[in-house]
Amino acid sequence: MKDHTIDITLSSTKKQKPESDQLVFGRVFTDHMFIMDYTEGKGWHDPRIIPYQPIILDPASMIFHYGQSVFEGLKAYLTKDEQVLLFRPDKNMQRLNKSNDRLCIPRIDEELALDALKQLIMIDRDWIPGAEGTSLYIRPFIIATEPFLGVAPSKSYQFIIILSPVGSYYKEGIHPVKIAVESEFVRAVSGGTGTAKTGGNYAASLRAQEVATDKGYSQVLWLDGVEKKYIEEVGSMNIFFKINGEVITPSLNGSILEGVTRNSIIQLLKHWNIPVTERKISMDEIYDAYSNGLLEEAFGTGTAAVISPIGEFFWRDEKLVINNGQTGQLSKKLYDTLTGIQKGTEPDPFDWVVEVK
Amino acid sequence: MKDHTIDITLSSTKKQKPESDQLVFGRVFTDHMFIMDYTEGKGWHDPRIIPYQPIILDPASMIFHYGQSVFEGLKAYLTKDEQVLLFRPDKNMQRLNKSNDRLCIPRIDEELALDALKQLIMIDRDWIPGAEGTSLYIRPFIIATEPFLGVAPSKSYQFIIILSPVGSYYKEGIHPVKIAVESEFVRAVSGGTGTAKTGGNYAASLRAQEVATDKGYSQVLWLDGVEKKYIEEVGSMNIFFKINGEVITPSLNGSILEGVTRNSIIQLLKHWNIPVTERKISMDEIYDAYSNGLLEEAFGTGTAAVISPIGEFFWRDEKLVINNGQTGQLSKKLYDTLTGIQKGTEPDPFDWVVEVK
Repeated sequence: MKDHTIDITLSSTKKQKPESDQLVFGRVFTDHMFIMDYTEGKGWHDPRIIPYQPIILDPASMIFHYGQSVFEGLKAYLTKDEQVLLFRPDKNMQRLNKSNDRLCIPRIDEELALDALKQLIMIDRDWIPGAEGTSLYIRPFIIATEPFLGVAPSKSYQFIIILSPVGSYYKEGIHPVKIAVESEFVRAVSGGTGTAKTGGNYAASLRAQEVATDKGYSQVLWLDGVEKKYIEEVGSMNIFFKINGEVITPSLNGSILEGVTRNSIIQLLKHWNIPVTERKISMDEIYDAYSNGLLEEAFGTGTAAVISPIGEFFWRDEKLVINNGQTGQLSKKLYDTLTGIQKGTEPDPFDWVVEVK
Repeated sequence: MKDHTIDITLSSTKKQKPESDQLVFGRVFTDHMFIMDYTEGKGWHDPRIIPYQPIILDPASMIFHYGQSVFEGLKAYLTKDEQVLLFRPDKNMQRLNKSNDRLCIPRIDEELALDALKQLIMIDRDWIPGAEGTSLYIRPFIIATEPFLGVAPSKSYQFIIILSPVGSYYKEGIHPVKIAVESEFVRAVSGGTGTAKTGGNYAASLRAQEVATDKGYSQVLWLDGVEKKYIEEVGSMNIFFKINGEVITPSLNGSILEGVTRNSIIQLLKHWNIPVTERKISMDEIYDAYSNGLLEEAFGTGTAAVISPIGEFFWRDEKLVINNGQTGQLSKKLYDTLTGIQKGTEPDPFDWVVEVK
């Protein structure tokens, strides 16, 4: 798709923008959205930016029945000089196509999607909050729209991008969370959809999350679906441990999502000459390291929180308190560096940041 | 919810009904639909029958992002005496609530749902086809509608029922299908959502189905997600084997859907004094039985096809041809008996059939 003129229809009215200090996550949306249709035999067509509006679908549309959908999440940041920055947006579009492959959804043109995203952001530029810790959350997603009750890939789709100004993930700065190790429910298994960003993985996680919340824990630590022994992810984030000076994260085994933040952290650690290893790691090994006083830090990584330090694990009726429940030095340094690069206040040695003009 | 008056708005126009011999599966819908809303703090409210119409949702609605949805499938049959019959509809509503529990969706009032379903059918009664093998397919489903991008159970939902006149699953009578045993992709695993009727399970199955179709097979046989050794389901059906006179079906192990047809067949076989066992069964065991000439029949079971005889398995580069690729005697007898009970032409010793008046 070389020629991809995006048709633009501006909204005649403007919604009221929330105050910077009133921002929460994912509840308020901007004045416009991007939309593009897929029709079998015709491919992706009619890319357009239109006023933010409801989606109108036949009740038999496949998204309502068979969950054929994928999505992405990334952020735009406003610098002190009023520049608009994106963080590695090409990685998100690549991953969207990987998810498409797994879910039998036709691939999108990544260049067109990036261009659409940038045009949409510039149209709703006034919505990007500038205060510390705030950003514009970007949600590209694809849904199956064919009105048909047979179990088969849909013959029509919509690719949509919506934008939401969001507040700081941590209202009072970065602080450690308590995590329950999940031993009953499973998020994903090798051969399943764990490596794809698709609705079903998140739907499957709700029940375990509810049980953990009732016990006073903010997220669950997912173990592998086969032996319920090896560590996979935490909540909807990737996970890292610092053990005796070495940083370890579970290797991409076919059921773990390949996080953009995960990848960036590995590169940063290597750049800093801090040993970092991607490998299989069991909860028993974590317990041993903890018992021997070698478990120095643990943290989740993802687009929403960037770095989420872990202060405590609950496993087999025992509480494993890490670093006295305080944010570790390395967690803090990674958070400051990554958010600094994203906001344009720190040097960007890897050319991760893309300015939107 | 004792008092549940269902508000009815009739359509002012009637769509043209398809000819009986033109009917396919799940592409044409009747003139009306049932809808009911859930709002946190208020519960399920405003049950109503309205003209069949599009669903209008905010693009941030959770169904588009996190797959929180459940559904059911059942059929209404028209007898020669113009009676309208349902087959064990209470089982579907019970299962819908089990699926709700797994997906953190608030339970529905099963009695109200059944009443709604019956009223809707009677309003669109003229849509029920009467020809051999035809029926009115009923699709109840629930979708998460809250416009929020956080990963958490939605605070609002819609419960909807739509109806579709469907043709005979087998255009030229019951005939055996060829099945590829799936050794790469996994449908579900214990601790996952395999026992729930939720979109994500079906989305996860599409890729394997596509690969099998490309090889000339009509469905895949799913093995367990842990050892990829034990038999789970076939396509979106339960599976039965007849080995040396005994009927065997995989036991409900936490990743297999509890089919209404599966349950009915087990009861029928017991009634006929044919030995039937629910247990773990490996593909190796099936191969051994086949090699020893003891694998007499194999068939899938589900609402859409009722009984789907299997004529061939493809496993490890080998073709296992069953009963010379012909429909087995027991498969045929089960199909005739079950469809006979459903259509009111066979005695109904278990009181499975419910007349809609």
